[in-house]
Amino acid sequence: MILTVTLNTALDITYRVRALRPHASHRVTDVTERPGGKGLNVARVLAALGHEVTVTGFAGGATGRSLQHQLTHTPGVVDALVPVTGSTRRTIAIADTSTGDTTQLNEPGPLIAPTEWSAFQEAYEDLLRASSAVALCGSLPPGVPVGAYAGLVRTARASGVPVLLDTSGEPLRRGVAARPDIVKPNADELAELTGAHEPLQATRDARRRGAHAVVASLGPAGLLAATPEGQWRATPPRTVHGNPTGAGDSVVAGLLSGLVERLPWPERLSRSVALAAATVLAPVAGEFDRQAYEDLLGGVSVTGEATAA
Amino acid sequence: MILTVTLNTALDITYRVRALRPHASHRVTDVTERPGGKGLNVARVLAALGHEVTVTGFAGGATGRSLQHQLTHTPGVVDALVPVTGSTRRTIAIADTSTGDTTQLNEPGPLIAPTEWSAFQEAYEDLLRASSAVALCGSLPPGVPVGAYAGLVRTARASGVPVLLDTSGEPLRRGVAARPDIVKPNADELAELTGAHEPLQATRDARRRGAHAVVASLGPAGLLAATPEGQWRATPPRTVHGNPTGAGDSVVAGLLSGLVERLPWPERLSRSVALAAATVLAPVAGEFDRQAYEDLLGGVSVTGEATAA
Repeated sequence: MILTVTLNTALDITYRVRALRPHASHRVTDVTERPGGKGLNVARVLAALGHEVTVTGFAGGATGRSLQHQLTHTPGVVDALVPVTGSTRRTIAIADTSTGDTTQLNEPGPLIAPTEWSAFQEAYEDLLRASSAVALCGSLPPGVPVGAYAGLVRTARASGVPVLLDTSGEPLRRGVAARPDIVKPNADELAELTGAHEPLQATRDARRRGAHAVVASLGPAGLLAATPEGQWRATPPRTVHGNPTGAGDSVVAGLLSGLVERLPWPERLSRSVALAAATVLAPVAGEFDRQAYEDLLGGVSVTGEATAA
Repeated sequence: MILTVTLNTALDITYRVRALRPHASHRVTDVTERPGGKGLNVARVLAALGHEVTVTGFAGGATGRSLQHQLTHTPGVVDALVPVTGSTRRTIAIADTSTGDTTQLNEPGPLIAPTEWSAFQEAYEDLLRASSAVALCGSLPPGVPVGAYAGLVRTARASGVPVLLDTSGEPLRRGVAARPDIVKPNADELAELTGAHEPLQATRDARRRGAHAVVASLGPAGLLAATPEGQWRATPPRTVHGNPTGAGDSVVAGLLSGLVERLPWPERLSRSVALAAATVLAPVAGEFDRQAYEDLLGGVSVTGEATAA
């Protein structure tokens, strides 16, 4: 199975209102709740692609129970979340029905106790034994050390399990130095990591900092990959309009599924670009428009070259 | 005991953010959760005044469980909420730390099934037997008939229990016609009910529509009361600045506690005005600044006259 790690899981709540006006009172016309956090979105996309997936990370409190209850209704995803005393955070997306624009409010997440962090590390090591690949996704909740991902990357590598890291800031900087197989920064995260604003330069810089392969997501412009096997740029056949939340998580799902299926890099990148665009066309993160995915897949342009063997 | 009815209970969540900007992403710096809905706020103030209080209405789902769990930690308040299949709504108050201004988002509430509404009516009738007074508070959740409060007023009167109604719109219009002992509209609700925008005129009109006593809350200007015993205006000694959420609920608590203690109307009104001002000075609805309450109480001005006996 593929393992995804979401240390700061979330109950993702979406509210529809006519138009958000600061300092006014609003009647919410529609409420939806979904299991959230980047690794859970990745897992749902992987499951929809037919892969067996296990999710781990932390869950606690009433929101954690809601999240886990909803996971039981998510086919193909196995719940291996570790219980904590604190409450899983909520995220609130307020979507204006008039314009489709979204305002986001993110709770900080529960304070993780040292014993809870130790319990997670043990569970993670056990889960790696049955894993063909692992994705480490998203922000760290309070109490988890900033070098957490670096440690989890090293454990995966010691277990011989390919590891993808998708985070930002200092956790990304430290995680990259632990030599993950793949990192997937967006343009901002890449610039923050390397100080370079030119994506090609920054992607190469990120490899020099320790990542074996760097796949930079450039939004509607697609992906830029620097890998031991070569360098490629993958571009969608057309620009799609919709909700970009979760598009990056679908790129992670595309890359991981391509890795375990031993696809060559150009095919992994085509799949990831088509999945990301099909996710923009779906209403929520962790889902994609399957018909659009199949239509787009053949039209993704991949240019670049393999490294001479 | 005093009974308060909150058909549309809520889990009141407050978020602190630097400043709310539509269509941006916000890190919430502080999260608080409290049992909410007008009748629950009234109950907390009554309990703080030393009265035994029972709360009823509906609770369901994960948010209902959170609300009921928190009620167990509220001294003096007995939980007699009726379980429902739907989920108790959340309300989100987003407070800007820079200005103190608040943006409010209110979920609609669970759909109440006809059998759940019947179960509530039976529980209500049982609870009335032990009640010295009852307050019917707030909006109706979906599925509850618009004439619900009229029926609950009639049941209370048939049981010989004094009944206060605090709602708005069509539920208020129908409820008033069932002849409650007291209604407590604010200026807007009173104008909507009567069509009259001059408060004294509107207060008298509301009595003619069926309410035995009408206590209009005029915000910082205090209260205006038209009752069978006379007419009075009660004004706080000074204008206080703070969070007005819950001030009206504290007026209800002041009126009900004064009623069961058989205080004369001028004393009930003084207490209610002082409690409302002391609630503005407290950070959240359902709480008041006790020192401010005691300081303000003696300074409330009550003018008017008793009806000739």
